[in-house]
Amino acid sequence: MYQIGVDIGGTNIKMGLVDDRLQIVRRVSVPFPHEDSEAVAKRIASEVRGLLAAQEVPEAELSSVGVIVPGSIDPTGAIILDAYNLGFHNVPFKAQLQAQFSGIPVYLANDADGAGLAELGRGAFVGCQTAVLLTLGTGVGGGLILGGRMFSGGKRQGVELGHMPLVAGGEPCTCGNLGCIEAYCSATALAREGVRAMQTHPESLLATGSGGDPSRIDAKFVIDCAKEGDEAAKAVFDRYVDYLGSACISIIHLLDPEVIAIGGGVCGAGEFLFAPLRANVAKKCFYGDFAKIVPAAMGNDAGMIGAAMLGRNAI
Amino acid sequence: MYQIGVDIGGTNIKMGLVDDRLQIVRRVSVPFPHEDSEAVAKRIASEVRGLLAAQEVPEAELSSVGVIVPGSIDPTGAIILDAYNLGFHNVPFKAQLQAQFSGIPVYLANDADGAGLAELGRGAFVGCQTAVLLTLGTGVGGGLILGGRMFSGGKRQGVELGHMPLVAGGEPCTCGNLGCIEAYCSATALAREGVRAMQTHPESLLATGSGGDPSRIDAKFVIDCAKEGDEAAKAVFDRYVDYLGSACISIIHLLDPEVIAIGGGVCGAGEFLFAPLRANVAKKCFYGDFAKIVPAAMGNDAGMIGAAMLGRNAI
Repeated sequence: MYQIGVDIGGTNIKMGLVDDRLQIVRRVSVPFPHEDSEAVAKRIASEVRGLLAAQEVPEAELSSVGVIVPGSIDPTGAIILDAYNLGFHNVPFKAQLQAQFSGIPVYLANDADGAGLAELGRGAFVGCQTAVLLTLGTGVGGGLILGGRMFSGGKRQGVELGHMPLVAGGEPCTCGNLGCIEAYCSATALAREGVRAMQTHPESLLATGSGGDPSRIDAKFVIDCAKEGDEAAKAVFDRYVDYLGSACISIIHLLDPEVIAIGGGVCGAGEFLFAPLRANVAKKCFYGDFAKIVPAAMGNDAGMIGAAMLGRNAI
Repeated sequence: MYQIGVDIGGTNIKMGLVDDRLQIVRRVSVPFPHEDSEAVAKRIASEVRGLLAAQEVPEAELSSVGVIVPGSIDPTGAIILDAYNLGFHNVPFKAQLQAQFSGIPVYLANDADGAGLAELGRGAFVGCQTAVLLTLGTGVGGGLILGGRMFSGGKRQGVELGHMPLVAGGEPCTCGNLGCIEAYCSATALAREGVRAMQTHPESLLATGSGGDPSRIDAKFVIDCAKEGDEAAKAVFDRYVDYLGSACISIIHLLDPEVIAIGGGVCGAGEFLFAPLRANVAKKCFYGDFAKIVPAAMGNDAGMIGAAMLGRNAI
């Protein structure tokens, strides 16, 4: 049997035909059409039929169609409550898709949840009962595996790991609260601290390398300056690692997971990030034997793989 | 059938004969004998036999003996790693007890885990799949229910909810880290802030009511002064509620539980605590429909009931 995994983003819709070993045997990507959700559902169905035809797979061999979106899903898994990048609000997307695929079960989930599921299927969480995915990008997202399955909240309202308080009363977060993990551990936060350090250290590589232009300072630039040995950048990076270590401790002391996987652009830093991060966690952790902290393994295919797995996760 | 629930504390050992409806039908309490663990196991067995005889229940009607201790248990549930109040370290207590109860399964767990289980059996968590118990005392402890069962960590090393960072880099915690939930939300933390406010506000009721003696300021005194309308105490209490609200948010944004129950002496404040706490959480929470926040229901019997439930939890 095969599954279809659809990863809807604000830029593209990626669709994959996935086999029982979770390999993508054929894929297609189309620009996200900024139309109403019904039109989007029809477009997806037409592309999926194209995929099946091209691979000569009859619809009868399709066991499920799974879709992930960057947004919140209602507790029944039927309605997209808010997906700002897609312009979808209170949309009965499961039903709209189901109307296109009669007899084939359709599943809908949040993209961060799906990414965690993909790690369980083929990535960093294979064989795990308890694991946490932390994605450090513009914001901080996360996916939870509990009891060997995707966990999208006890009341099924999703996991908002980036908005656990880390420094209650601290830096303002995009969500309106103060001191969330996102406000300290996102790539955005690392860049923000890089800009501040550039301004107070005009002699630093952060300042000279950027020509004093804040818009040229992103997370990668801060990491690169730190790697070059720039003291100001190194201090920013060390503080970032310390906060990220505390975020990991928060998860470890509550759930004691087997693995924490970290995804997002910041992970490009590799062991320059992971080695001091593990040392920081070891220093703060109650357990000598704590979660393995590793880079997320699934990369850009995580969405399609996770979406394709929604059917088996539901069983 | 009946179960025995044993709650070992540094002061007393409480033993209850518990029926299938989780009622304690007979109980006995003896001072904790500061002896080696083998002698303690023998003492427990002898008291349990006395309980059975007094109630005229034959040993054949006993389906399990469960014991909870204030300390850490190894992942197999066999060894007490560290129970400082009992003076037990690396003690094979399950085997020592099992030797006293041939044919009756013996279970061993941490007291906070057991208290969570008791709430599931007969208290605030009845019918819940996902729930969290937060105990605010000298320290902050916690018990987790996930998937409708006691969860003692993905690697079975226990839950250290009180040592999730709340203000990373903040107040020193007894554990050596900075800014743990315990350092802001324990009764000890509330008293500490009361003392500080008393020192900076000599006109306050905190100061006049205590005669300026820090040793007379405990959590209850701070709460009582706040209830009296003392401005300094009210400010301390409001900050405490704000931190406790953030601790709840941390749990809610990660697990989205159905219920958070709060136990410990601080709960004596009743709605004076719970009403502003719920309002604080509502202000910060991503979900309009978040966990019920209620007082823990099981009180002093939680330990015995939870211990008695360990057998059924293991199935």
